Amino acid sequence: MSTAGTIKSEDNQTPEQRLQEMGLELPPVPKAVGAYEPWVRAGNIIYTSGQLPWIDGDLKYTGKMGAELSLLDGYDAFLLSTLNGIAQLKSAVGDLHRIKRILRVEGTAHCTPDFTEQPDALNGASDLINDVFGERGRHSRMIYSDPAMCLNCATLVVLWAEVEL
Amino acid sequence: MSTAGTIKSEDNQTPEQRLQEMGLELPPVPKAVGAYEPWVRAGNIIYTSGQLPWIDGDLKYTGKMGAELSLLDGYDAFLLSTLNGIAQLKSAVGDLHRIKRILRVEGTAHCTPDFTEQPDALNGASDLINDVFGERGRHSRMIYSDPAMCLNCATLVVLWAEVEL
Amino acid sequence: MSTAGTIKSEDNQTPEQRLQEMGLELPPVPKAVGAYEPWVRAGNIIYTSGQLPWIDGDLKYTGKMGAELSLLDGYDAFLLSTLNGIAQLKSAVGDLHRIKRILRVEGTAHCTPDFTEQPDALNGASDLINDVFGERGRHSRMIYSDPAMCLNCATLVVLWAEVEL
Repeated sequence: MSTAGTIKSEDNQTPEQRLQEMGLELPPVPKAVGAYEPWVRAGNIIYTSGQLPWIDGDLKYTGKMGAELSLLDGYDAFLLSTLNGIAQLKSAVGDLHRIKRILRVEGTAHCTPDFTEQPDALNGASDLINDVFGERGRHSRMIYSDPAMCLNCATLVVLWAEVEL
Repeated sequence: MSTAGTIKSEDNQTPEQRLQEMGLELPPVPKAVGAYEPWVRAGNIIYTSGQLPWIDGDLKYTGKMGAELSLLDGYDAFLLSTLNGIAQLKSAVGDLHRIKRILRVEGTAHCTPDFTEQPDALNGASDLINDVFGERGRHSRMIYSDPAMCLNCATLVVLWAEVEL
Repeated sequence: MSTAGTIKSEDNQTPEQRLQEMGLELPPVPKAVGAYEPWVRAGNIIYTSGQLPWIDGDLKYTGKMGAELSLLDGYDAFLLSTLNGIAQLKSAVGDLHRIKRILRVEGTAHCTPDFTEQPDALNGASDLINDVFGERGRHSRMIYSDPAMCLNCATLVVLWAEVEL
C-alpha cells in the first residue's frame, strides 16, 4: 500500500500505458452474474454494474476482511474488482483516454462486524484509479460494509465515468 | 424463476400491456416512510427512493433470506419492491412508454451472514424490468446485503429511469 | 425529533440564514479519509463522498444503533453527517442559494441485526435538508444498514445536489 495517494505526473501517458508500466493487465471482460448489463451509458456518463474480483472466470478473493482475509487481501481484492471495472469501461469506450473523469467509486467490503479499516482497504480501488487516470481519476467515493456477499466474494466495485461526447 | 433473462420480442406492446399480460397489477403508489420524496427528477433522469415490498399498506415480505425467507421468497420480494418502483415511475411520467431506458437497479437483500445467492434473488427485480420494458429495460445493477432493514422488510429497490425530454 | 417533516415557509431566507436561526454552524470542511475527493461535479450535479459525523476532527458518534447508540443518537449522528455534507456543498458552490435542488440523500446506519427504526434515524438527515433548503430540499433517499463501519462511525451520508449552471 506504499503508493497510496500517489498521482503520476506523466500526463502524456495513456491509461493503457500506465497500466502496462504498472505490470497490470486488464482481465477479460466478465459477464454479468444475473439478468442485467455490465454497464450502461446515459448522456455522457457510463455506470458499471457491481464488479467482482475475477480473473478469467476465477473468483480470486472470497471471504471476509477481519476473518480469513487481512486488510492487505482486502486492498488487493478492491484493486482487482476495480481492474475489472476499468476493463468494462474500456469495452464501453474503446480507448481509455476518452474518459474525461472518474466521478465516483462505490465499494462494498465483505467484513466482520468489528472490522473498521474499510478506508484503507478501499484505497486499493482509489490508488489504482489515481495511478491509471491521473488528474482525470480524482473521484468521490462511498463505502458499504456487508456481512454477506454474492458468491461469497470479498469486494464489489461500481465505477461512474464521464466520457467525452 | 423460469423466465429469468427472457426478453419479450413483442416490442409493439406498451409496458402497461405487458404487465397486464403477465397478470400483474401496479400497487397503489406507496408513500415515503420518512421525511423525503418517493422520487425526484433531474434533467431527463428519474431516481426513485428505496421501495419496500408493499401491497396497499401491507408489507408482504419481512425477515431475512437464509433464515425465515427462502431464495424464492427473496426473488418474489425483489419483484414486488420493483413493482412498487414501476408504480412510482408511472406516477412520475404518466405513460410508461415515455421511459427510454431503465439505467440502474439498486437492490438490498435482507439476509443472514452466510447467504450467497443474492444474484439469483435480485433477478426478481431484473427479470421483471426486462419483461416489462424489453430492450429499454437493459439495466446496470448493484446489490447490497444488509443484516438489518427498515421495518424488518426483506428487500429495498431503487430504480433510475431515463425519460424522453 | 419534533420538527420531522416541517418545511419552513420563509422562502426568502438563504440556507445560511436558516442554519443560523436553527443555531447550527457548519463544521470545518473535513478531509477525505482515503485517496479520494470529498466531492466531484459532473455537469450541474455535485456528488459528495460519504460524510462521517465529525466536528473539527473529532468523530462525535461511534458505535451501533440498537446497542450503545439509541435511536435519538442515530438521528443526531445522521444530522451531523449531513451538516458535514452541507459544508462540502458550500465549499463547492460558495453560496448555498446556488443549489437548485437536493436530489438524493444516501444514508448508512451502523446498527445491530435486530434494529428496524432506520427511517426515523435517517430523518435526522432529511429533516435538516428540508429545514435548510425548504422546497429545494425535497429529496429522494436510500438507506443502508451496515454491521461494521469505517472508523466505527455511526453514520455515513452522501448528498447529490443540482446547482444552477
